[in-house]
Amino acid sequence: MNTSPDPQLVRAALEQVSASQGFNAWLKVGIVDLHTGGVTIEIELREELSQHHGAAHGGIVGALADTAASWAAATVAGDVRTASYTIHFLKAARGTRLCAVGTVLKAGRRQVSVEVKVHAGDGGDDWGAPVAVMLASVAPVAN
Amino acid sequence: MNTSPDPQLVRAALEQVSASQGFNAWLKVGIVDLHTGGVTIEIELREELSQHHGAAHGGIVGALADTAASWAAATVAGDVRTASYTIHFLKAARGTRLCAVGTVLKAGRRQVSVEVKVHAGDGGDDWGAPVAVMLASVAPVAN
Amino acid sequence: MNTSPDPQLVRAALEQVSASQGFNAWLKVGIVDLHTGGVTIEIELREELSQHHGAAHGGIVGALADTAASWAAATVAGDVRTASYTIHFLKAARGTRLCAVGTVLKAGRRQVSVEVKVHAGDGGDDWGAPVAVMLASVAPVAN
Amino acid sequence: MNTSPDPQLVRAALEQVSASQGFNAWLKVGIVDLHTGGVTIEIELREELSQHHGAAHGGIVGALADTAASWAAATVAGDVRTASYTIHFLKAARGTRLCAVGTVLKAGRRQVSVEVKVHAGDGGDDWGAPVAVMLASVAPVAN
Repeated sequence: MNTSPDPQLVRAALEQVSASQGFNAWLKVGIVDLHTGGVTIEIELREELSQHHGAAHGGIVGALADTAASWAAATVAGDVRTASYTIHFLKAARGTRLCAVGTVLKAGRRQVSVEVKVHAGDGGDDWGAPVAVMLASVAPVAN
Repeated sequence: MNTSPDPQLVRAALEQVSASQGFNAWLKVGIVDLHTGGVTIEIELREELSQHHGAAHGGIVGALADTAASWAAATVAGDVRTASYTIHFLKAARGTRLCAVGTVLKAGRRQVSVEVKVHAGDGGDDWGAPVAVMLASVAPVAN
Repeated sequence: MNTSPDPQLVRAALEQVSASQGFNAWLKVGIVDLHTGGVTIEIELREELSQHHGAAHGGIVGALADTAASWAAATVAGDVRTASYTIHFLKAARGTRLCAVGTVLKAGRRQVSVEVKVHAGDGGDDWGAPVAVMLASVAPVAN
Repeated sequence: MNTSPDPQLVRAALEQVSASQGFNAWLKVGIVDLHTGGVTIEIELREELSQHHGAAHGGIVGALADTAASWAAATVAGDVRTASYTIHFLKAARGTRLCAVGTVLKAGRRQVSVEVKVHAGDGGDDWGAPVAVMLASVAPVAN
């Protein structure tokens, strides 16, 4: 991976793609930070994203982390798709916001390994310990 | 795991819980089959569940598989929560319906291992090869 | 993946490579069956491969499954290396032999997804339920 | 998890158990550091632990990481066994020593989540970037 795409162009492309995806548009994913090798995204938690104890549904936690993984990979590899991931749920995702931080561990030609930590809370600077961690394999899509 | 709960009671409990979960109610998850050790669930694919190429979004595929894993585990262990899972995306999930089949591999006292295969298609008998496979660890919740 | 290598050539190459690997030579991995899309391998269990309760050590179960995953992938993609895997340990691996069956789920250009089931027993036809299951991502190595 | 065992007792117990395990005795696993919530272990790389390109075999990297995961979990939960893990191989494990650092992410009653980073090198203070990362689920064994 000799050259990475321009982060501003990646951000613009991701925001455009995201708006055109029924699911991500519905989730209302916002980019808080994006640089070569990493991304931070957030969503606001609402009724439709909850499970029966009032916390965010595991499917939402997984989906947000999956998005963070592929977007972090996109900062080093352009167009990508998630090939596989593993997620560990560490505690209930309670609060009004959910934040996922994706960090590229290795940018290979065939596979980008990404670590994601998901935090729940009420925004601001202190998110506390992660509610979930993910390791993802994201594949560059041939041009 | 000496005794498993009555499948009819499990099914009724899952349908009640699911209706009370904002996310699953929104997904409109239906139970096609449920027996001790396994479950088959389906959803109808619609615009809000798609990514930008028109197939089901990976987050939806993962969330449906996660639900199948925990519901399969519930048939042998009662109240549970997903502790971790790994999912491999094998091909694009195209069609009008998504189906997830969860099968308990091992019902331990502390952890239930479940395999899930997700299929996409237009319903009927022939779903073709899986679009995703999952291995999940589901933890019984103490009573 | 339009063409797969000749299974006989793959088998010969794997046996040659394996003999040249300190670790696999020490494990004494034998190929029971190999065809395009799958492989079955076995080892004899001995004192050095055990944990303290007399069953095969988890590290050995994982290593054998890892080998089965990469060799199954080699039948469709030639030279490969394991990028990542997930393993679930289902029960203690007791007996005199350990057998791993690797099956290719998807042969992509950048990643081959392989499922492996590991069985323990005393050989013969009846291996019983798997002691471990694995999902692996194996990457073709550029020529 | 209200109380953790005394780290000195855990260390003594692990060293005794390890010496009685054929495989770990053969690997010659040494404890560099052990405290409540974490462990660092090392092995010396030798011919029998290699693959055909001279680096440590993936099976050895996985086995050492698996040991670090279960030993880190033992510092908070006493007697344990690894239930499942996911490992990503980031680069070839070259050098004369292999080091695995296990850190407990969550100590639940039914499952301990552990993150492990494996480093290769020639010892000393600078190990460089990890050659592999693991997320493991370790189950406490009932007393």
